[in-house]
Amino acid sequence: MIIIGEKLNSTLKSVRPAMENYDAAFVQELAKKQYEAGANYIDLNAGMFYKDEPERLEWLVKTVQEAVDIPLSIDSPSPKALEKALRANTNSKPIINSITDEKERYNPILPLVTEFKTGVIALCMDDEGMPETVEDRFKIGARLIEKLTKAGVQPEDIYIDPMVRPIGTGSHYGIVAIETIRKVKTEYPEVHIACGLSNISFGIPVRKLMNQTFLVSAMTAGMDGAILDPLDKKLMSFLYATEALLGYDDFCMNYMTKFREGSLEV
Amino acid sequence: MIIIGEKLNSTLKSVRPAMENYDAAFVQELAKKQYEAGANYIDLNAGMFYKDEPERLEWLVKTVQEAVDIPLSIDSPSPKALEKALRANTNSKPIINSITDEKERYNPILPLVTEFKTGVIALCMDDEGMPETVEDRFKIGARLIEKLTKAGVQPEDIYIDPMVRPIGTGSHYGIVAIETIRKVKTEYPEVHIACGLSNISFGIPVRKLMNQTFLVSAMTAGMDGAILDPLDKKLMSFLYATEALLGYDDFCMNYMTKFREGSLEV
Repeated sequence: MIIIGEKLNSTLKSVRPAMENYDAAFVQELAKKQYEAGANYIDLNAGMFYKDEPERLEWLVKTVQEAVDIPLSIDSPSPKALEKALRANTNSKPIINSITDEKERYNPILPLVTEFKTGVIALCMDDEGMPETVEDRFKIGARLIEKLTKAGVQPEDIYIDPMVRPIGTGSHYGIVAIETIRKVKTEYPEVHIACGLSNISFGIPVRKLMNQTFLVSAMTAGMDGAILDPLDKKLMSFLYATEALLGYDDFCMNYMTKFREGSLEV
Repeated sequence: MIIIGEKLNSTLKSVRPAMENYDAAFVQELAKKQYEAGANYIDLNAGMFYKDEPERLEWLVKTVQEAVDIPLSIDSPSPKALEKALRANTNSKPIINSITDEKERYNPILPLVTEFKTGVIALCMDDEGMPETVEDRFKIGARLIEKLTKAGVQPEDIYIDPMVRPIGTGSHYGIVAIETIRKVKTEYPEVHIACGLSNISFGIPVRKLMNQTFLVSAMTAGMDGAILDPLDKKLMSFLYATEALLGYDDFCMNYMTKFREGSLEV
């Protein structure tokens, strides 16, 4: 699994004040912790700072890469903010989070993907809005994959986000996300998935139970990447258990190591 | 999900002494509790009583049906024990647990299925032993389905057990079980699955974590029945969460009810 650590996000109440105050120590500590907990990428989001998002995102990039040598996921819909952050990036190949098939987003972000040779998270969304069915989501995902690869992006640098919506607002949204993942991975096995997990449980109680359930179910359907909280020990325990269950962990060696380290919680 | 409550099993240390001593109150209480916790069938196993299994199983049937009006899963490889228990059964349609495609087991048990018009759990196993691959398991499962339906058994009365083996003894056993379930349910949608869950985690630590993971993963693959402990609140919480996630629980109504009852644990 490709784990994109979600904690350095300005929309999180526990994190925003530190970002507000340019608290480098706090930001670096949270980056390090996520790295040590198994994150493969650190997501950086400064979207709550409407006035100076580009400078804020640039500061996050510089601050985090002083502390950890781990690739970053630059999280913004703004081409300007993305560009400023990418120019500051000195760690290895980052991911742009994210592009869609909306003209106003696709056209200015694509040149950043190709110029900076980044990975890119592509949301199953276009100018007609958020699609309802598996077929419509897959259609947009497939169109994005075709367009991006034609522009020179390697399939393994593309991360499809199936656009998870809360099952509390529609009983079909879980299975729609899961079947979209399955279809994308079946048709485009080299392309990755990057799924925002916690949306699924928005508005229902015992959210962690549903998030854990969704993680296991989506991995079973082929999800090989997710934006999640790597500091959530229980969630990570289910991740290791699912890797072992699905045969990605020879002789359950990683599962056993995590157990010996005291990291498996249930 | 069709839940077959597994607790009244003579191999369980916590249960055997009560069976040994014909402790009807204990047995009835455990049957009731499983029923109240959501079991659709109560499995009865007296296999540890080598000398008088038929009489012991008959006693279990009589004792349990005095207390609860819920169909039973009569659990024995012995045609003699099965027949004695079936003759004593007055609750609604029971399940025979189980038949295989081994000649010595299939031939004497089939007439009991048709005479007593029972459901039947069919293990993916034949005279060549336990198959290793998905293809070989499916082949046996499909052969059993064809033979049983030809003998007059309705597809919806057949429960295929994919024969779960511990992932601690082979990293591929998880995915083999999951893909066997998927293939059986794809090719024979009317046939049910009855999967012994806890085998998967035999010999590895934090077994509950792996059992919960397997439950979610197998349900995602189409498992619609399992032999499990309905008194395990966490396991049942994952079952309800998965039903909601996969769209079997309209408006998450059952999930919300379980939450309000204080039954959801994580």
